[in-house]
Amino acid sequence: PREFAADEGAAEEFIRLFHAENPSAGPVEHRLREVMSEISMTGTYTHTSEELTFGARVAWRNSARCIGRLYWRSMRVRDRRHVETAEQVADECVGHLREAEQSGRIRPTITVFAPDRPGRPGPKIWNEQLIRYAGYREADGSVLGDPRYVDFTEMVRRWGWRGGAGTPFDVLPLVISAGQGTPKMFEVPEDAVVEVDLVHPSYPWFAEFGLRWHAIPAISNMCLEIGGICYPAAPFNGWYMGTEIGARNLGDADRYNLLEAVAVRLGLDTGHERTLWRDHALVELNVAVLHSFEAAGVTISDHHTESRRFLQHVEREEKAGRVCPADWTWIVPPMSGSATPVFHRYYDEAELSPAFVQHPEAVERGLGRLVN
Amino acid sequence: PREFAADEGAAEEFIRLFHAENPSAGPVEHRLREVMSEISMTGTYTHTSEELTFGARVAWRNSARCIGRLYWRSMRVRDRRHVETAEQVADECVGHLREAEQSGRIRPTITVFAPDRPGRPGPKIWNEQLIRYAGYREADGSVLGDPRYVDFTEMVRRWGWRGGAGTPFDVLPLVISAGQGTPKMFEVPEDAVVEVDLVHPSYPWFAEFGLRWHAIPAISNMCLEIGGICYPAAPFNGWYMGTEIGARNLGDADRYNLLEAVAVRLGLDTGHERTLWRDHALVELNVAVLHSFEAAGVTISDHHTESRRFLQHVEREEKAGRVCPADWTWIVPPMSGSATPVFHRYYDEAELSPAFVQHPEAVERGLGRLVN
Ligand code: HEM
Ligand code: HEM
Repeated sequence: PREFAADEGAAEEFIRLFHAENPSAGPVEHRLREVMSEISMTGTYTHTSEELTFGARVAWRNSARCIGRLYWRSMRVRDRRHVETAEQVADECVGHLREAEQSGRIRPTITVFAPDRPGRPGPKIWNEQLIRYAGYREADGSVLGDPRYVDFTEMVRRWGWRGGAGTPFDVLPLVISAGQGTPKMFEVPEDAVVEVDLVHPSYPWFAEFGLRWHAIPAISNMCLEIGGICYPAAPFNGWYMGTEIGARNLGDADRYNLLEAVAVRLGLDTGHERTLWRDHALVELNVAVLHSFEAAGVTISDHHTESRRFLQHVEREEKAGRVCPADWTWIVPPMSGSATPVFHRYYDEAELSPAFVQHPEAVERGLGRLVN
Repeated sequence: PREFAADEGAAEEFIRLFHAENPSAGPVEHRLREVMSEISMTGTYTHTSEELTFGARVAWRNSARCIGRLYWRSMRVRDRRHVETAEQVADECVGHLREAEQSGRIRPTITVFAPDRPGRPGPKIWNEQLIRYAGYREADGSVLGDPRYVDFTEMVRRWGWRGGAGTPFDVLPLVISAGQGTPKMFEVPEDAVVEVDLVHPSYPWFAEFGLRWHAIPAISNMCLEIGGICYPAAPFNGWYMGTEIGARNLGDADRYNLLEAVAVRLGLDTGHERTLWRDHALVELNVAVLHSFEAAGVTISDHHTESRRFLQHVEREEKAGRVCPADWTWIVPPMSGSATPVFHRYYDEAELSPAFVQHPEAVERGLGRLVN
């Protein structure tokens, strides 16, 4: 038995799905024979470019945690399966960032690099997202920047990263391993990183916090699995839903943890929970995020709008005769849950394929906790 | 085989649990023989008053949806198993309301009425809670009061309820059926219904909405199941967590639906979701609830405090070597989810016994949709 042979059952299931949803692709039996013979000869098989595009889009459609799936059909798929070296991967990641955003308008995009093949793993991007900020542990134990990436930052510094400008928002280098090689580091050129300075529409003092965030959320350490083939490097982006920045990245106690500082500037009594100072501060942080992105002309959406779109998506999927898998705990936004319509119902929980899969080692690598 | 015979396995499991957690209760084998012989002779068995008290408290401890379980050991248990007629049940429900609250201080309390026995069902309280407000459907299709109880209100009016004063907060009559009898209706005396007028600490205009809410949340249509015995009428109360009123009862689109009205009075632009007017209004509504209850001296807690208490409870349970079952989707508060520590972890999902069980017919009865 060959190593890493693509699973024939998974391959057949995908090829049948592709032909069922794409009747113009011709007879499925012919393509199935082709795929099976390729697997028996090489241990793997090669997706046509239509299969790849369809597979990536359906992996998005199947992402139970994603509220943003209404537009799954329109994702741009950049086929870079011929790209294998760390340098080329880094270049194409930068190209991805540049193409996904055009004068502020963000378009859902995925870049698919070489898959795992028998005896020859595909390249890997270690970073959780293409753009993330360093977290520097200071002498007094506090953290400058994003505490989530303290270990990752220490890892790249051990490997020779000189560090950024020393701000709370220094973009981390891309860490990419290709083949059996040790990982290499690449700076993301400044002009490929669109960022938005955060200001508040009513509180001028808000600007004094000196906050900003990057425009493009591009997850880069999930494996794209299509019909038994693993594409370990397949970074994808949508646009931000405001709460991801305002509630989670800037608000979470183990991230930038800004609720108290904002509440104090709002003049709220932080000595008593009953003033709901945390809730007040959370709303103002999120108002600032949405306002600033809109003012900068960068695509972003709010959780009320995305919730409505998501229910529209569920309805469309049901009309198409498909199950729409959804994980309530991820779909319901992290603030004002019951004020959004997605809160008030249950969802199917099927695990469907193609899919984006989070491998445990990839999680560890993305947090700088697995140094090989 | 006898009808409704208490399940012997469930009985044994409970008796063993009781003795394991109450070593002073004496040898378990003796009590087990007693219980089994009672079941074989009568088809059921009778809990000692210690078993009943323990069973009710553990049913609370096992309530996976309840964030308020830290104080499960201290619930007062009113043993009213001898009470069977509708009139007596109604009287004791009123007694429960009076005893659960003493000059504003609310104490977790349960009143346990007669259980189901072979050929002789226990009494049932139809209302979802002992205190709930009527919903009157108006000629123009709108609803005065609580839209959740429109069908229930129409049901009791068909049965001769004259209706309340015609305010948005008219307390519904208790609907109680005992034995095979048809259900009877009983008004809750005004002086047994503590209510709080809602005002806002910063916005005097808030009082003009004329809102109020009752002090005691007492669920009355869940079945208490202990060791194979069903107590269909066992109303229980804790104190309110503010979001139950401010986010759900007053905020939900299919309840009092007040977010837009509050947002308009706050001067927010409700034409664009991005102003987060819903989120702003939600915070102010909840500030008003917490402030008003506190000012009135009525026990209430906020979701941040209850979240911390709950994690303390989980920790204590783990230390005691027990699983603490919890349903994330119910435990995480309906607003500012990620600003509470309960958001950032997973929970065990075991279904343990004793338990409070929601029978589907009881749900329908509580919503006035099952008229028998
Ligand atoms: C178009 C705009 C999009 C929006 C507004 C959106 C929104 C979201 C949000 C809010 C989450 C939860 C994130 C968190 O709580 O950490 C999420 C998760 C996710 N989304 Fe989307 N998304 C979009 C596009 C995409 C695209 C293009 C893909 C893939 C092709 C995708 C795949 C996923 C996956 C796999 C997750 C789960 C990530 C994980 O497990 O950590 N999304 N999305
Ligand atoms: C002491 C203060 C208490 C607090 C703050 C509290 C809090 C809560 C909250 C916020 C919920 C969710 C309600 C919803 O979203 O509809 C809940 C549900 C629940 N609680 Fe508690 N609770 C308390 C006492 C109790 C007591 C004394 C019992 C039983 C003896 C209990 C049993 C339950 C049960 C069974 C549910 C689920 C109800 C359902 O399925 O609809 N709780 N609790």
